This record gives sequence, structure tokens and C-alpha cells, in this order.
Amino acid sequence: MDKVIMMTLLYDFYGPLLTERQQKFIELYYENDYSLGEIAENYGVSRQAVHDTLKRAENILANYENKLGLIDKFLMQRNKLAEVARLLEDPREPSSQQLARARGILQELLEMDRG
Amino acid sequence: MDKVIMMTLLYDFYGPLLTERQQKFIELYYENDYSLGEIAENYGVSRQAVHDTLKRAENILANYENKLGLIDKFLMQRNKLAEVARLLEDPREPSSQQLARARGILQELLEMDRG
Repeated sequence: MDKVIMMTLLYDFYGPLLTERQQKFIELYYENDYSLGEIAENYGVSRQAVHDTLKRAENILANYENKLGLIDKFLMQRNKLAEVARLLEDPREPSSQQLARARGILQELLEMDRG
Repeated sequence: MDKVIMMTLLYDFYGPLLTERQQKFIELYYENDYSLGEIAENYGVSRQAVHDTLKRAENILANYENKLGLIDKFLMQRNKLAEVARLLEDPREPSSQQLARARGILQELLEMDRG
């Protein structure tokens, strides 16, 4: 997966566990496309300090995902949901086989006990 | 929500962030229905120590959910999934209205950006 997409997911799930400054730097760098130099200038710190803060924040986020695996599960569920959506796709009516398959996947998703 | 169910969900999502002992006590108490006294005896500690460890673990888990809200989102998504499953329910074929509603909910779920 693309690093920016992965960081966005990580930040979206676990961002509130970072310090305020870590959150701000991640947002500026990954969501608002600021350069290290620009963030450094805005915050009156060195480019290296921005780099280190970002690296540390990235490690913290990756570490939460390694422990909890919630993004992994989320992406897996999303794939299954997308399959259900495809089975029911407009404009035709689903065949009874497609309907049965969709019901089966939904059942499977409902039986999972976490996100 | 029932406290045991809520603790099970909390533990299921965030349990890996607890210490080994906290995890063990939560499992014995909430999943295996041991009493505080039984856990205390098995571990050679006081009943009060078991109580304190459990309380602390519960607070840690609740704190993660307060910050991240992932269980909340999970339960909301699950409700929506259950609604899709009801709309497609056996043994009748869904009406075109039901199908349209199911598609709408699936679309909504697929557009959410996290678990």
C-alpha cells in the first residue's frame, strides 16, 4: 500500500494517541503536503527536529497497528462489503445465486466479533 | 450495554495494550467467570490486589475507547450491516425498494473511512 494512504489510515485510527505536536506535524506533512522545511519554519525548529518528530509518530502509530491489527481487519471487512455491493449492483436484479452469496458474506461479517 | 459484554468488546479491541497480568485477570474474571477470591488464590495475591488490577485494566481499556471510539463505530456499522441482512432476508426475494435501500446502506458503509 502507498505510504501516504497507509499513514492516513494509521493516523485516522490511532491519531488521538499521539501528542498534539505529533498530530499537527502528521497533518501538515501527510494531509496538507507541507515539506519538512516548511513545517520547520512555521514552528521555529530545525528540519531535523521535524523529521525526528514525524519518524517517532510514525513508529508509534505502526506499533499500535502491529499490536491491535484493527486496520487490517477493517480493510478485510471493506473488501467483503465491496463484494456484497458488487453482487447487488445496479441496474440488474441479482440472481438468486448472487443473493445467496451476498447473504452468506453478510452473515460472515455479522459473526465477526470486532472491527 | 451489559458490563460483561462491554468489557469483552473492550478487551477484544484493546486487550493487547494491557500487561500480561492485566490480560490474564480480565480473561479469568470476565471470560471464565472466576471470582476475585479464586484469582487471588491462584496467583498468591490478595483479593484486593486482584480487584485493583482489574479496575486499573478496565480504566485503561475504557480510556482507549474514549480516545479512539473504534468500538462505537464498529457497533454502528454492525447495526447497518444487520439492516442490510434483514432487507435481503430469506426466503423471499427482496423488492426493488429493499434492494435500493440495501445498496444505499452499503454505499454509505463503503464511504466511511474507518472501522
